[in-house]
Amino acid sequence: MDFRTPSHLVPILERIRSFVDSELIPLEPLFLLGDFDALWPVLEEKRAMVKAERLWAPQLPTEFGGTGLSLLDFAFISLELGRSVLGHYVFNCQAPDVGNMELLHQFGSDEQKERYLKPLAAGEIRSCFSMTEPEFAGSNPVYMATTAVKDGDDYVINGHKWFSTAAEGAAFTVVMAVTDPDASRYRRASQIIVPLDTPGFRIVCNTPVMGDRGSGWASHAEVMFEDCRVPQSNIIGEEGAGFAMAQERLGPGRIHHAMRWIGICERALELTCRHAVGRRLSSNQFLADQQTIQNWIAESRAEIDAARWMVLNAAWLIDTEGAYAARVEISTIKFFVANVLQRVLDRAIQVHGGLGVTDYTPLAFWFRHERAARIYDGADEVHKRVLARRILKPYREA
Amino acid sequence: MDFRTPSHLVPILERIRSFVDSELIPLEPLFLLGDFDALWPVLEEKRAMVKAERLWAPQLPTEFGGTGLSLLDFAFISLELGRSVLGHYVFNCQAPDVGNMELLHQFGSDEQKERYLKPLAAGEIRSCFSMTEPEFAGSNPVYMATTAVKDGDDYVINGHKWFSTAAEGAAFTVVMAVTDPDASRYRRASQIIVPLDTPGFRIVCNTPVMGDRGSGWASHAEVMFEDCRVPQSNIIGEEGAGFAMAQERLGPGRIHHAMRWIGICERALELTCRHAVGRRLSSNQFLADQQTIQNWIAESRAEIDAARWMVLNAAWLIDTEGAYAARVEISTIKFFVANVLQRVLDRAIQVHGGLGVTDYTPLAFWFRHERAARIYDGADEVHKRVLARRILKPYREA
Amino acid sequence: MDFRTPSHLVPILERIRSFVDSELIPLEPLFLLGDFDALWPVLEEKRAMVKAERLWAPQLPTEFGGTGLSLLDFAFISLELGRSVLGHYVFNCQAPDVGNMELLHQFGSDEQKERYLKPLAAGEIRSCFSMTEPEFAGSNPVYMATTAVKDGDDYVINGHKWFSTAAEGAAFTVVMAVTDPDASRYRRASQIIVPLDTPGFRIVCNTPVMGDRGSGWASHAEVMFEDCRVPQSNIIGEEGAGFAMAQERLGPGRIHHAMRWIGICERALELTCRHAVGRRLSSNQFLADQQTIQNWIAESRAEIDAARWMVLNAAWLIDTEGAYAARVEISTIKFFVANVLQRVLDRAIQVHGGLGVTDYTPLAFWFRHERAARIYDGADEVHKRVLARRILKPYREA
Amino acid sequence: MDFRTPSHLVPILERIRSFVDSELIPLEPLFLLGDFDALWPVLEEKRAMVKAERLWAPQLPTEFGGTGLSLLDFAFISLELGRSVLGHYVFNCQAPDVGNMELLHQFGSDEQKERYLKPLAAGEIRSCFSMTEPEFAGSNPVYMATTAVKDGDDYVINGHKWFSTAAEGAAFTVVMAVTDPDASRYRRASQIIVPLDTPGFRIVCNTPVMGDRGSGWASHAEVMFEDCRVPQSNIIGEEGAGFAMAQERLGPGRIHHAMRWIGICERALELTCRHAVGRRLSSNQFLADQQTIQNWIAESRAEIDAARWMVLNAAWLIDTEGAYAARVEISTIKFFVANVLQRVLDRAIQVHGGLGVTDYTPLAFWFRHERAARIYDGADEVHKRVLARRILKPYREA
Repeated sequence: MDFRTPSHLVPILERIRSFVDSELIPLEPLFLLGDFDALWPVLEEKRAMVKAERLWAPQLPTEFGGTGLSLLDFAFISLELGRSVLGHYVFNCQAPDVGNMELLHQFGSDEQKERYLKPLAAGEIRSCFSMTEPEFAGSNPVYMATTAVKDGDDYVINGHKWFSTAAEGAAFTVVMAVTDPDASRYRRASQIIVPLDTPGFRIVCNTPVMGDRGSGWASHAEVMFEDCRVPQSNIIGEEGAGFAMAQERLGPGRIHHAMRWIGICERALELTCRHAVGRRLSSNQFLADQQTIQNWIAESRAEIDAARWMVLNAAWLIDTEGAYAARVEISTIKFFVANVLQRVLDRAIQVHGGLGVTDYTPLAFWFRHERAARIYDGADEVHKRVLARRILKPYREA
Repeated sequence: MDFRTPSHLVPILERIRSFVDSELIPLEPLFLLGDFDALWPVLEEKRAMVKAERLWAPQLPTEFGGTGLSLLDFAFISLELGRSVLGHYVFNCQAPDVGNMELLHQFGSDEQKERYLKPLAAGEIRSCFSMTEPEFAGSNPVYMATTAVKDGDDYVINGHKWFSTAAEGAAFTVVMAVTDPDASRYRRASQIIVPLDTPGFRIVCNTPVMGDRGSGWASHAEVMFEDCRVPQSNIIGEEGAGFAMAQERLGPGRIHHAMRWIGICERALELTCRHAVGRRLSSNQFLADQQTIQNWIAESRAEIDAARWMVLNAAWLIDTEGAYAARVEISTIKFFVANVLQRVLDRAIQVHGGLGVTDYTPLAFWFRHERAARIYDGADEVHKRVLARRILKPYREA
Repeated sequence: MDFRTPSHLVPILERIRSFVDSELIPLEPLFLLGDFDALWPVLEEKRAMVKAERLWAPQLPTEFGGTGLSLLDFAFISLELGRSVLGHYVFNCQAPDVGNMELLHQFGSDEQKERYLKPLAAGEIRSCFSMTEPEFAGSNPVYMATTAVKDGDDYVINGHKWFSTAAEGAAFTVVMAVTDPDASRYRRASQIIVPLDTPGFRIVCNTPVMGDRGSGWASHAEVMFEDCRVPQSNIIGEEGAGFAMAQERLGPGRIHHAMRWIGICERALELTCRHAVGRRLSSNQFLADQQTIQNWIAESRAEIDAARWMVLNAAWLIDTEGAYAARVEISTIKFFVANVLQRVLDRAIQVHGGLGVTDYTPLAFWFRHERAARIYDGADEVHKRVLARRILKPYREA
Repeated sequence: MDFRTPSHLVPILERIRSFVDSELIPLEPLFLLGDFDALWPVLEEKRAMVKAERLWAPQLPTEFGGTGLSLLDFAFISLELGRSVLGHYVFNCQAPDVGNMELLHQFGSDEQKERYLKPLAAGEIRSCFSMTEPEFAGSNPVYMATTAVKDGDDYVINGHKWFSTAAEGAAFTVVMAVTDPDASRYRRASQIIVPLDTPGFRIVCNTPVMGDRGSGWASHAEVMFEDCRVPQSNIIGEEGAGFAMAQERLGPGRIHHAMRWIGICERALELTCRHAVGRRLSSNQFLADQQTIQNWIAESRAEIDAARWMVLNAAWLIDTEGAYAARVEISTIKFFVANVLQRVLDRAIQVHGGLGVTDYTPLAFWFRHERAARIYDGADEVHKRVLARRILKPYREA
């Protein structure tokens, strides 16, 4: 048993941390105050720096321009990147692109890799993922109305999706659609690539989320597929494998998210400590001297540590035994870490007082936009049920 | 002992509830999606309707165009109005104007009443309140840098304030400024009226709060007073009474807020129930059938009821024995109800899933903007300390 | 609306409080350290004093030797008595006798009142109630195996019960038994009086509960009914009415319990404050100066107040509109107050440190024996479900 | 990085688990129902079996008859032993003896090792530890009244202690006493061995703790030292090192406790699952089908996992870098795991309903006796303050 950070990783993490501190955190106000037009060009410069540093796409194998690191390694990196709202994007490992890259890498045809994965990996294009439908509960992922019907060499897709994150400005989406309504529950749907310039596809709007329609990568579109026709070769993997691949996609995806959340927590705690020691309450007392503040710092620290070990163990387990072997751990971290995140952010805001609800720190952004962490990719309730049933199974059979 | 809603109030509450449901809730999307230019004119029409219905300014005595109801009566009304994000504004009992009206009514000179209270009560002008300073912890209300120095017949005011809610478009502010730095701790500051067209006053910006700079009444300004000169007759009450009047102002103010929060909770619970019974999870199961959802509905109901009785009792106590006698109760409701509010909203959002984080319901607005309820007018921690010290006092003396 | 304690009650409450402080609290160590042989005789003296003071059986009408007060009045008294572990017993309003008295008073025949209610009301005998069965989940009160079969003029009862509180030394039990297994769900069972000297009845043992088998009134027996024969005239109310009467019994019963719990909370908070001001942490600091301790005191105070208003309102509603009209409120207080109780006790123990887990204060007794408050008379989960379904009903029908 | 259980340990853990299941759990009713006279002799047989199996004293080096395993290894074992209330005692690694063995092994003189450690390690005698004083807050460990004054070749000890766990039947105690009141705060006290047959030592009583005075090893004595005279050679380590050694003792001690608590949690979860699948709610529904129960199982599983990784990491850190390097982690696990324990037990009891508060499972024992886990060896509040101050230190210095 060994709890040491892998030694090859230590210098990489230091370089990334330093890059985030010096290059990205200073840009956060542009993002937080919504000055996207000024922001996007500067971010392109930063992305070029990351490429030049050979830190680009840390989740990808080297053949696709990545670092060739393990999932466990990437988990550590995701934490460092998560400390800034800009980290993952600048390193080209932002959701939903990161999921699409992993999907295409694992299941894509050679042609798909050439046409979609390569430019995505290079950061030349962006993509999105169209799964959730406004009329259906996301907690039941096999329950959906979007269909892809074969017609000649094509699929003709009809459906209504929302939370197609980052659709604005994306080159293509991966849509989850029912290809065989008569198949068994988990074999009905497939995942199909739809370039966004395909006739019949349209963005209805960027959904206003927590007061904010967002922009580009940082937006969540509602989209329509109306007799949207793509070649059958655009299917990823085999027909009916949509649900299975979505599950597969979510395994590492939850590691990414969970470590990103822990990165957010670490930053929130840093901001908390810095504010607490600097904020004078009276001539001889600082906020950091208050026992309540100290309690919160200790509680956040403990919860963050607990969360980190759980996620690192899950990443290690996926690396060593595969995502299937780690499915209990993956469900566990999803709800556990998302709740730690919410509590840590809540405490951080309370310590900051009025400042905490302004956009002069990233806390308020995270507070409102990461509220969804307990909802997306399976709400807390869904994961708890999954976990409990797995735990109960041997007892029922006994 | 009698827990019945006062009978004279029942028909009034029904009329208000019906007005909110039919006239205001349909307008909420304009507010929630930020279409303020379309919104403000329609709201003026609604305000005219409220006046015509003689429901205007329910917190004010009839001589100022109000309803002449008691604080307890107004508490019930505030709950009904709180069910919509637009309720208090349309009835002219929105913060911070409502506080300024009460202040001027109680402590203002005849001239001040004529010049400031009357048009405010009539809804012809708006006002703001400038107390919090970015450089000082709001939890210590006697700790501030803004000064008002006598010069001839004037005060010359210098200082930097933020969270001057609704300054944009307001006619005047009431500023808290140190008039005698050598006085005892609680006698240093005074409250002074400053018309916003006074030279030396400027709005630095609307502070971005939870992703949103807001507009007009729904905004929080950062403001500067630079050699800002007003006649000494603009002082409200006597010199050095600023802190005492602020405390006095906060008594009923906390009733207003707390009942507004309970109104929010009631609406959140209504939305929750409606969504839960309508949301199908599978062919034969609805969200409302889930035990977890039922637990949350029950817990929210219980907490809302608990909160409501506490606030009604506090309002009744202020009516019957005065704000001073009720100070323990006032501190208690402030933190208790603000925390109930946060939990109820959090559960409501979780039940709504993805929809809950969009701006298609008011939940996301309240989730982000009422996070400050645990901070403004005294953070939880401040009120808990005040309450605990009062409870401990007889034991220390024993 | 009026939140004042009824004026006729004020002097009564003062007398009771003074009696509890001077006569009962000094006896608590005998109870807490298990010196029951010394305790029971002294308690009889105290009961005689209570009778002489005409405070006896405050829940009963005067014709049965009680005070003739309303349920709301009794709620206030129950709080005062709850401050001591001995209060309810000494005033003859202890569970389960109080429930049996109410049952017999409301539904008993004249003969039953003469034979069972009178000596019970006079405190000459004690009784118990046999409902819960070890093999069946208490959360489903219509699911049980005990039967009462007619044979000649008798019922022949067979069954196995536990948590027959206070059976040791009792004169009779009221047993819930199935009299018609073919009736509809809620009409199967009846309540039948069984004198404990009836052949076929036996106490298996006092169940060890939280480390303690208890003694006499303060014990929980496991009992067997084996061909236990009683005259059919021993049935209370009509056949099949067992469940309905149990529900009826529980309405006021929950007021009693909930106010008793609030009395416990008040005492726990008193002990907390007294310990905190007296406990020196260092030469110049006391426990009461710690912000964490102050937070807990404030949180407990707020929760106790919230709980008290809810229960008083429920009692008032039962008095004015009957138990059926108040059923939502009754379910709500059951789980809300039981959870407040657990949190308040937990904080009180933590403040007391090592002393808190000893039996030198009543806190440890309450901590372990009132853990069951979230279980008996319907677990939290049951009440939440009941409450949620009632709240959801109009939405489902809409 | 490697999260695998050390391979040499796997068969040992399996043997221990099997021994606990087959030999100890069946004996628990004797313990839980207080039948100590029957219990102690059987436990001696089990201890002999453990010795024969060469699993005895797993925390000790082989030269003292132990297994020679690392602290990390012992952590895993402590979890397995913690699943039964009898585990640690039967393996001779029960508190407080385990701490005294570690203390004597690390700091004892050769003579002390021969005379006290050897028989302790062999399980021939028991011991206790006398630190806490009823008159002083345990949260301030340098604040005490017990003194040891040199007189000739002896120390003359006077003082009053309680929570001298397991004093009844012990051969000696280690007492913490002030040897130099004028020394700096942390150098005042020393640890001195006092055989319990020393004149002037007496057990005042076994303190009643949570309704229970206990017996032998399972008791907590209040003791007096009245002119109690022991040779100066009975001091452990050097004079004034008492506090430092206590800190040293607590490092591994917290690993032992924390892993024991996790063992308790695992057992509580096993009992929960078994009860939930076996408990029928109606003809076609079991407790395990309830979503609330499933939520609790999932939440407990997640919290237990989180706790386990934190403790294993802390043990590993002590093994690899020493207790001083791990002091932040040691403070963190103390309060984090103790709180997980309390929540897991609380949920387990709630699932068990009435059965949960009886002594027919070990849950009620743990619920009441492990409430102290948040108090002994530093209350939550103390550890949070320690942790927060260490976290804040670099920020204050920046």
